[in-house]
Amino acid sequence: MNKPCPRKPLDLTTLLKCFTIDLIQADWRLVVQKLRSQYQPELPPCLQGTTVRVELGDATTALDPADAHTINRAFPLTYGQPLAHFLRATAQVPDAQIITEHPTIRVGLVFCGRQSPSGHNVIWGLHDALKIHNSKSTLLGFLGGSEGLFAQKTLEITDDVLSTYKNQGGYDLLGRTKDQIRTMEQVNAALTACKDLKLDGLIIVGGVTSNTDAAQLAETFAAANCATKVVGVPVTLNGDLKNQFVETDVGFDTICKVNSQLISNVCTDALSAEKYYYFIRLMGRKASHVALECTLQSHPNMVILGEEVAASKLTLFDLTKQICDAVQARAEQDKNHGVILLPEGLIESIPEVYALLKEIHSLLRQGVLTDSISSQLSPWASALFNFLPDFIRKQLLLDPESDDSAQLSQIETEKLLAHLVETEINKRQKQGKYKGKKFNAVCHFFGYQARGSLPSKFDCDYAYVLGHICYHILAAGLNGYMATVTNLKNPVNKWRCGAAPITVGF
Amino acid sequence: MNKPCPRKPLDLTTLLKCFTIDLIQADWRLVVQKLRSQYQPELPPCLQGTTVRVELGDATTALDPADAHTINRAFPLTYGQPLAHFLRATAQVPDAQIITEHPTIRVGLVFCGRQSPSGHNVIWGLHDALKIHNSKSTLLGFLGGSEGLFAQKTLEITDDVLSTYKNQGGYDLLGRTKDQIRTMEQVNAALTACKDLKLDGLIIVGGVTSNTDAAQLAETFAAANCATKVVGVPVTLNGDLKNQFVETDVGFDTICKVNSQLISNVCTDALSAEKYYYFIRLMGRKASHVALECTLQSHPNMVILGEEVAASKLTLFDLTKQICDAVQARAEQDKNHGVILLPEGLIESIPEVYALLKEIHSLLRQGVLTDSISSQLSPWASALFNFLPDFIRKQLLLDPESDDSAQLSQIETEKLLAHLVETEINKRQKQGKYKGKKFNAVCHFFGYQARGSLPSKFDCDYAYVLGHICYHILAAGLNGYMATVTNLKNPVNKWRCGAAPITVGF
Repeated sequence: MNKPCPRKPLDLTTLLKCFTIDLIQADWRLVVQKLRSQYQPELPPCLQGTTVRVELGDATTALDPADAHTINRAFPLTYGQPLAHFLRATAQVPDAQIITEHPTIRVGLVFCGRQSPSGHNVIWGLHDALKIHNSKSTLLGFLGGSEGLFAQKTLEITDDVLSTYKNQGGYDLLGRTKDQIRTMEQVNAALTACKDLKLDGLIIVGGVTSNTDAAQLAETFAAANCATKVVGVPVTLNGDLKNQFVETDVGFDTICKVNSQLISNVCTDALSAEKYYYFIRLMGRKASHVALECTLQSHPNMVILGEEVAASKLTLFDLTKQICDAVQARAEQDKNHGVILLPEGLIESIPEVYALLKEIHSLLRQGVLTDSISSQLSPWASALFNFLPDFIRKQLLLDPESDDSAQLSQIETEKLLAHLVETEINKRQKQGKYKGKKFNAVCHFFGYQARGSLPSKFDCDYAYVLGHICYHILAAGLNGYMATVTNLKNPVNKWRCGAAPITVGF
Repeated sequence: MNKPCPRKPLDLTTLLKCFTIDLIQADWRLVVQKLRSQYQPELPPCLQGTTVRVELGDATTALDPADAHTINRAFPLTYGQPLAHFLRATAQVPDAQIITEHPTIRVGLVFCGRQSPSGHNVIWGLHDALKIHNSKSTLLGFLGGSEGLFAQKTLEITDDVLSTYKNQGGYDLLGRTKDQIRTMEQVNAALTACKDLKLDGLIIVGGVTSNTDAAQLAETFAAANCATKVVGVPVTLNGDLKNQFVETDVGFDTICKVNSQLISNVCTDALSAEKYYYFIRLMGRKASHVALECTLQSHPNMVILGEEVAASKLTLFDLTKQICDAVQARAEQDKNHGVILLPEGLIESIPEVYALLKEIHSLLRQGVLTDSISSQLSPWASALFNFLPDFIRKQLLLDPESDDSAQLSQIETEKLLAHLVETEINKRQKQGKYKGKKFNAVCHFFGYQARGSLPSKFDCDYAYVLGHICYHILAAGLNGYMATVTNLKNPVNKWRCGAAPITVGF
C-alpha cells in the first residue's frame, strides 16, 4: 500500500478511488491477507450473547430404515438420540431449555485427516465460546494429530497462541499425522488420554473417516463410563461429508475458488498458445465434488466425473474414445487446444482398473514383492497391467492408504489419459480421420498448492461458528454428535445452528 | 459483494468497515478482478498530454568493446545509433526536439514467444498513443503470432476490441505460435507483409529471442529500403532480458507474485503435514530469476540456482549430496519436511547432463531414431543415460526446441532430484547415518498456472507505458530500437522513458 489512505474523512468518490488504488496495487494479495487476518467472523443471532437455548427434537433414525437395526446394534448407547437445535434465549419455543450453568470445563481438540483451509477457525470459535461462558475453562490442542492424542502431547490454546492463526490456512498450529483412530490399541490410547487429561469433551476435526471414528469413540467412551463427550466437526476440502444435516464441509469453498482461479488461468493460457490440451487432476477421492464445482466456476472444455464413469461402467477405452472424439470435433472447428478436468479418484472409478487394483492390493497384503506381482495377476489383469505405460504400473504398485484406497495423490491418471489420447489421435491421424494439428498434452495436478491457502470468508465464518457450536453441544451434555449449520446459502444471520447424532448420517 | 456500499457519503470508519467487508468477502478475487479490469494505468509526466520532446544522445556502443566490431559488421545500418529520451514538452533541454507532426500512420503488432501477463496492455498503450496523436492512425494486431505475420492475418485494434482485454493476462486477444522470425523465408515473408499492409511500424512483443529477431528485421528492412520501422518491447515472464537500459520485463513481477503465493501455500502445507519434501520446478530457462525472486518472497528451505550449478560445475551427485545433507540436518532437529525450489533450466546447467543432451540432440539432428540413440552415445554418455530413471530418459530424448535448448517444460528435473535424494536417503538410513522419518517427496511444476493470471498493477502500468513509448519511437522515425523505462523501482511519476538501439544490449 504505497498510497496510504488519508486519515481525515473524505467524500465517497475520493475514498472509493483511494481504495481502488490500494486494491489494484501490486500488493493486493498482501492487502487482502492483512485484512483477512484482522477479520472477526460473524455469529448467527442464536449464538450471540451468553445465553443459548437448546431444543431437543424427536429421536432420529438412520437414513435408510434397512440399516437402522445394524447401526443400532453397533451403537446401542449413541444411536437414536434426538436432533438438537440451538436458539436465541428469547426464542418462543416452549420445550427449549436455557443452559444456565457453565462450569469450568476442559476440552481437547484434534485435527484428523488432511489439512483443510480454515481448520484453525474451529479452534478459535471453540476457544471464544469456552472463555465467554467461563473464563477458567481450558482448551488443549493435540500436537501432531491422532498420534499426539495417543501420546498426550498437548498445547494449551490461548489468545496469544491463536493470534497469528486466525482466518489462516493450513493445520500448522497443531499439525496432523495419520487419519485413523480405529484399532483397539488406538481407541484405548484415546480413552486413556481423555481420562488422564480429565477432559470433559474431545473435538474431532475431520472428514468422513474421522467422523466415523468419532462416532465409534463416543460409543466406546459411553460404554466405558468415561465422562468425555465426543463431538465431530465436518472439515474436509473434498466436500464429501454430506447428508440432510451437513450441507457442506469447511475448506471446500476455498479449495474450489482457489483451484478455479488456477484453472481459469490455464484456460487463458490454452486460448493464448492455441496448441495444448491441459489435463488437470484435482483433489477428490470417492466424490468428484471439487472437479464438478470447479467446472461450474471455471468452464473448462470437459470434465470427467468419477461417479458418472462408475455408474456407466466406462472403461479406459471408452474414456479415451470420448476425449478423442471431442478433440477431433474441436479440430474440425480449427480449435487445437482445450482444458480437461478430472478428480484424483477417477482411476478407482474405472471398472477394470478398480478390479486390477483390488488384485494388486490383495497380493501386496499377502506380502508379494512388487517385482513379482505382475506374474501373479490373473490373466486378464496381467494383460491390462502390461498394456499400461510403465510410469502408471509403478504407481499402481504403491501400498494402499490406511483406508484401503490406492495412493491416489501419487497416481498420475491425467498422464495416463493424455498418453492414451495421444496414441489414439496419432492413429486417427494416420488413418486420415483426424486432420487437426499435432496433439500436445500438458498435465497438471492441482493437489497441494490450494490446501494451505488463505480461507474464503465463507469458510472463516463457517468454521468459527462450528467451533462455537461444539461448546454448546458439550454444555448441553451431548455425546456422539456432530456440529451442524444449515441454511448456509443465506447470509450468516439466517444460519441455523444445531447438532446431529453422527450415526444418523451413516 | 453481498453488502454493497451505501451510496451517500459516510464517515471514514463506516466506509473502512464497509470496504473491509467487501475485501474479505468470499468473492474478493472477483472484486479485485473487476476493479482491475476498470483500472486506467498511469503515465509518467513525460508522456502525458500530446506534446513529447525527444532528446537523442551520443552514439551507442556494444557493452563489450571486443564485440563492437562483429556487431557493427552484422548490423551496419542499425548499430551505433544514439540513445533516445522522451521528455515533457516543457523540459529545459536545449537539444531536445518537439515532435510536432503526427501524420496518419499504420502500425502492426505481433506477440512473439510465450505469453506473459500484461502483454495486452502494450497493445492498449500503443493504441491510446496512436489515437491521441492522430485519430485516423491504424493499429493492426497479427493473429497467431509470427505465423499470422507471415500469412498477413490481422485484426484491427479498436476500443471495442480492447475492452475485455485491458489489464488482463494471457495473449488470447491475438494468440501466438512459434517464437522465431529468423530464416530468410520468414524474414522475407515479414518484409512482404509489412510492404503489402503499408505499415509504418512493426512492433515485436517478446523476450530475448524475439528482440534479437527484431534487431535482425530492422537491419534487413533498412537494407531493403522498406519504410517500416521495427520496434522491440521487453515482455517475458522469465525476466531474463536485462541490460543497462532494460531493468525488468513485463510479466516477471506478476509471475513471481503468483508463484510465491502458491509456494507459500505449499510451505504452510509442509508445516501442517510435517512429512513431505516438496520439490517445485519453476519457469526460467537460461536464467533462474523467477526461482530467485520467489525464494526472496516466499522463504522456502532451499533453492537451487542454475547459474550457481553451472559456475561451480556441480554434478547430479553433488546436488543430491547437498540436498541429502540438508534433509539429514533437518531430521536431526526433528524436522521431516521442507520445500525446495528449482528452475526448469537447471537440467541444462548440470555439466554432465548438458554434455549428454548435446550428444542426444546431435544424434537427433542426424536423423537417428530415439530407440537407437542409447546405443550410439559415447561410452560415458551411455553410462550416464542408463543410470538415469526411465521417465527422464524418455524426456531427454524429446526433440530440442527451436532455439536448440531441450524441451525444458517437459523434463521433470524435480522428479529426477526427488528420486536421487530418496535413493540416497534410504541408503544412508540403512547405514545408520540418517535417523529421520521415511523420506516422502511430492513434486510440482508451477509452469502454466501463473502464465494466464491477472497482471499485477506494476505490470499493467509498465506494459501500458511501453506501448505509449512504441508510438513515440515511431513518431521520432527511429528503427531497430527497444522501448525502455528506467527508474522502475520508484513510483510511475518518476519513471524515465526512452529507447535504446536493440543491438546495444547484445
